[in-house]
Amino acid sequence: MAKLLLGKPVIDSLREELKGRIAALEERGVKPGLAIVRVGARPDDLTYERTALKRAAGLGIRARTITLPENASQEELMDVIAWVNSDPSIHGCLMFRPLPEQFDEEAVCDALDPAKDVDGIGRGSMAAVFTGRGPGYAPCTAAACIEMLDAYDIPIAGKRVVVVGRSLVVGKPVSVLLLDRHATVTTCHSRTGDLPAIVRKGDVVILATGRAKAYGRDFFHPGQTVLDVGINVDEAGNLCGDADFDAIEPIVDAITPVPRGIGGVTTSMLMKHVVEAAEGMVTPSCQTA
Amino acid sequence: MAKLLLGKPVIDSLREELKGRIAALEERGVKPGLAIVRVGARPDDLTYERTALKRAAGLGIRARTITLPENASQEELMDVIAWVNSDPSIHGCLMFRPLPEQFDEEAVCDALDPAKDVDGIGRGSMAAVFTGRGPGYAPCTAAACIEMLDAYDIPIAGKRVVVVGRSLVVGKPVSVLLLDRHATVTTCHSRTGDLPAIVRKGDVVILATGRAKAYGRDFFHPGQTVLDVGINVDEAGNLCGDADFDAIEPIVDAITPVPRGIGGVTTSMLMKHVVEAAEGMVTPSCQTA
Repeated sequence: MAKLLLGKPVIDSLREELKGRIAALEERGVKPGLAIVRVGARPDDLTYERTALKRAAGLGIRARTITLPENASQEELMDVIAWVNSDPSIHGCLMFRPLPEQFDEEAVCDALDPAKDVDGIGRGSMAAVFTGRGPGYAPCTAAACIEMLDAYDIPIAGKRVVVVGRSLVVGKPVSVLLLDRHATVTTCHSRTGDLPAIVRKGDVVILATGRAKAYGRDFFHPGQTVLDVGINVDEAGNLCGDADFDAIEPIVDAITPVPRGIGGVTTSMLMKHVVEAAEGMVTPSCQTA
Repeated sequence: MAKLLLGKPVIDSLREELKGRIAALEERGVKPGLAIVRVGARPDDLTYERTALKRAAGLGIRARTITLPENASQEELMDVIAWVNSDPSIHGCLMFRPLPEQFDEEAVCDALDPAKDVDGIGRGSMAAVFTGRGPGYAPCTAAACIEMLDAYDIPIAGKRVVVVGRSLVVGKPVSVLLLDRHATVTTCHSRTGDLPAIVRKGDVVILATGRAKAYGRDFFHPGQTVLDVGINVDEAGNLCGDADFDAIEPIVDAITPVPRGIGGVTTSMLMKHVVEAAEGMVTPSCQTA
């Protein structure tokens, strides 16, 4: 029986920490502000938006949604980004992706001020992750993996971590974040040969491929910690992760379930990044006031 | 007896390729231009500068050195970078590092136009490496590793590559470049436990730690290809790599010697990047002229 690495205690602990930091900001006259930019109305986006708005409200972060119709133009969206960049009451911005086909998505992501890019979508944030220096933020899901390991006191330095997946949203950034935390990192993907043998070498394994229940018994042994970043729907219509949870939970030491694992922590990281961005806006003169 | 992966055939082949591309540019009225920025006069920098100037002259690249005294100010150097950025006859810039202590080196690197950052020192180039999209260039040494593997037809896709070293100049960028070429990449460093066992798992091993003759027999077995990026001086005062060459050359399949291996290819990559930068300056109207 593996220890279940639940998101809730991490979310609760972050909430308390952020409440204190937000109170300190408010004493200095700063209310953290989050802009959510949505094009169209995909059900997944709406679900995440509701969660984010609720979480922000509970913390005292001023969140607002800017919506554009699905057939909006590049120019209209770039105008929204320019406004987000220039509005001092907005400290961070979350934009739902993928954008509809008519958009040059990379150009939109790169136009967002890296100091407000709290979900790490632009080139500035990518450079910040790669170099370890700002301005910019890691994508929230990648940051949530590190937060989860820290919250459960799972050592990283000197440990072998195997990351399965090489996307710019999770696999690549989490690999670099772990490397900077002194892990020995192996990054795998669809072209990796003998994946089970490689995954078995990890003290910590991060699954981020979006393949429902694809990683079972063959990949794991006792002593391992598994972070399952996948959010998929199985044949019965239920939410599930990339791990074949029922098969491997009896084997490994610790595992994040799906749902109730990493997913909710991702939203907390969004809030944390907004607070960090707002703290960055506090000028030295304000801080000593 | 390992196959020696010598730099010379790669350098020769790149020279021929670049001569053709430079001739095509000249037909369109473009002469590739390289600016070398040097603060002070460290012997290592002067040596590399002589090599680069000679290589450029042989190819028909217009290279010039801009020197500042060792006690120059941040402002003076930033003025030089601004001039490099604005001069249309300069397509690429190489700046020697580390800069003397009085400089904010990161600010200088980040000020260089990523489109002219042919040695990949700024945030823009880091983002280009991380995301796989420009503008920007990989550091020449990291690029030379990939060039060397390609030139000797050593397969990367689906292979296991172990990179020892996690610097922004070699380890990190070459890890990402290899990942994008579909290798399964493990990045190791001074905090890695049981390094010999991990290095033995690599089909290809890249040594980039700057530790003279630090990797010997224990780390290798037959079948492996070793790229030795280290340039060190041994106790007898001779140039040597990170690999204990005499010990492992009888064991592995292929290895780059030091000297006569990767080093000279790095200079070729600098020239290649300058040509690519110049080609980027050719507007579509010129191309069809």
